[in-house]
Amino acid sequence: MLEIFKVASEEEVRVEADGLRRTVTEVFRKMGVPPEDCGLGADVLLSADLRGVETHGVSNMLRSYVNGYTSGSINPRPNWRILRETPSTANIDSDGGLGIIVTPKAMEIAIEKAAASGMGVVTIRNSGHLGMASYHAMMALEHDMIGVCMTACPPLVVPTYGAEPRLGTNPIALAAPADEEPPFVFDAAMCTVAANKVKLAQRVGAKLMPGWVTNPDGSPAMEAIDPPETDSMRDSDMSLLPLGSTRELGSHKGYGLTAIVEILGGIMSGGGIVGMANRGVFGHFVAAYSIEAFMDTAEFKSTMDEWLRLLASTKPAPGHDRVVYPGLPEFEEQNDRLSRGIPLHREVVDWFRSICEELSIPFELVRGTPS
Amino acid sequence: MLEIFKVASEEEVRVEADGLRRTVTEVFRKMGVPPEDCGLGADVLLSADLRGVETHGVSNMLRSYVNGYTSGSINPRPNWRILRETPSTANIDSDGGLGIIVTPKAMEIAIEKAAASGMGVVTIRNSGHLGMASYHAMMALEHDMIGVCMTACPPLVVPTYGAEPRLGTNPIALAAPADEEPPFVFDAAMCTVAANKVKLAQRVGAKLMPGWVTNPDGSPAMEAIDPPETDSMRDSDMSLLPLGSTRELGSHKGYGLTAIVEILGGIMSGGGIVGMANRGVFGHFVAAYSIEAFMDTAEFKSTMDEWLRLLASTKPAPGHDRVVYPGLPEFEEQNDRLSRGIPLHREVVDWFRSICEELSIPFELVRGTPS
Repeated sequence: MLEIFKVASEEEVRVEADGLRRTVTEVFRKMGVPPEDCGLGADVLLSADLRGVETHGVSNMLRSYVNGYTSGSINPRPNWRILRETPSTANIDSDGGLGIIVTPKAMEIAIEKAAASGMGVVTIRNSGHLGMASYHAMMALEHDMIGVCMTACPPLVVPTYGAEPRLGTNPIALAAPADEEPPFVFDAAMCTVAANKVKLAQRVGAKLMPGWVTNPDGSPAMEAIDPPETDSMRDSDMSLLPLGSTRELGSHKGYGLTAIVEILGGIMSGGGIVGMANRGVFGHFVAAYSIEAFMDTAEFKSTMDEWLRLLASTKPAPGHDRVVYPGLPEFEEQNDRLSRGIPLHREVVDWFRSICEELSIPFELVRGTPS
Repeated sequence: MLEIFKVASEEEVRVEADGLRRTVTEVFRKMGVPPEDCGLGADVLLSADLRGVETHGVSNMLRSYVNGYTSGSINPRPNWRILRETPSTANIDSDGGLGIIVTPKAMEIAIEKAAASGMGVVTIRNSGHLGMASYHAMMALEHDMIGVCMTACPPLVVPTYGAEPRLGTNPIALAAPADEEPPFVFDAAMCTVAANKVKLAQRVGAKLMPGWVTNPDGSPAMEAIDPPETDSMRDSDMSLLPLGSTRELGSHKGYGLTAIVEILGGIMSGGGIVGMANRGVFGHFVAAYSIEAFMDTAEFKSTMDEWLRLLASTKPAPGHDRVVYPGLPEFEEQNDRLSRGIPLHREVVDWFRSICEELSIPFELVRGTPS
């Protein structure tokens, strides 16, 4: 079972989703996570890897979660509980549990409330990282609902004209069902580029693009530069720029959007100013909208089909052959990776080999199908 | 009462808010709007002018509304009604009424539902322009709620890599109360720059900045160019770029955010694909979150104070003397304009003079206090 097939480059190998899923599930089990939650945690990570969102898949996140469990900063058996509740809202204390496991449970509550009252919104305080935000938003799709997920993160992003990071990367995700077309699934950090993309650039030796980060003096770096040499952006003298990069290009909008996530997911979770000094935990927000509460669901879904087709048939600008909508490339990527395997950097495979050895887990990464 | 005091430039005069408000109220009355709604319409416009949001104040919008009423495209006495309703949601048919008048009524419904059920969300189909979106969001503040407003607009914005406009400028507004500090109020179109800013550039003879619009071939114009010569962007060969401007700078995020507004405000209002061919009406979305449903309201507001002060005390980047948060400059501007008057372009004053004459309304624009 140790054979790994190299497909893309010297540095990349493809592995089958099933073996990776089993391995990740076992890692969670060894961290002390209850058996019924291990598969859920693995599913959130694998979903990111299958959809091509490497930044939030096993490569970047699992070792960070393992570090959190082993250092005690993440609680493997959280006694999470609802602190407040109304017909359409709830507030949860996650008891230091990992967000990838507590957030789906919160989303289930939001979906139940939406089914009963039209809308459901749940905020979560005192929680760890929630992985790919769109995972939780997409849970609404099978219920013919629109799902939303946001998460207020530790400070890495400067306000417009500011030289110090005051805001998290703070992703917003929204999933909306269509009838025949792949669903609309948006998921993006409200800075120009997600912090994990900087890590990825470090790992693969790529430059950071103009408009992504600040210079050490806090001004927007509008030329390509090397990523920081520190392990974490937080320890570097660079910060991320809000979406829009400069005031002239609209960075005050990206700044405002990160701030909205901080208010809804951070402050309104009751966890204090998430992301400020020594409050390095996350605050989450999930919501479900029952489409039937607003209009006929079948009509909504067929209108979505019509609209998504219109977007995807937009005449491309010179130099481009295709216009996509959010969720379409990820849907296609998932189909491809289910058949050909998930590409992992060799260094990630090496990490799996060593953590499996360390935890006495079978190393089950088997080759995918070559292209 | 005809005296107008020139303060800023050859082209700008300052007028007192009260006289402008009376004049605008009378204009609505002459358009056939019911008496109880005229003051509301004027309040939405004046609120924009007082907050320094000229693009959504009397200068750009009132004459467009007058044209709509006189051409019959806006219904002055709409029989708006609730089509569907749940404990936390409603869907309204606005019957072709102007959004600035119907949306506050929808927001009142959202606030009532939030008071009863924790959350309130209302979508509005078949409606006209709603003015400055943050007006409606800010209605939540006095109820110790967070207010949201979004509006799906006619197509002016290209998708990433697209050469045809498929999406509206689609603003998102959110207002959240603090205790002692001015409230957080975000309000921004999800393109790099609002369409009305292009109109404003036309009127004052300014260039459009790099990253704001496309070239005629659909590619992003990354150098400053003249605004289109046509009255409307829709008739020009330029489109607006989504926030982020280019793929490298994150335009897929701005694209996704405009699309989210289209889904929630447009498609989920049941009005079809708002903004596509021959469906040039707007779809609106308002929401209210009862803070008390999630946490102690006093704690939320004092945490907001702490956080807003932290943002405003961020060390500025080189070349800047101050960092602000969304809503702070508008709050300061409103105080200034209440005392010194609202600056209007002379051409706008001339329009008021002629419309007052045409409609037999007293011309009441009186001078503000000079600086």
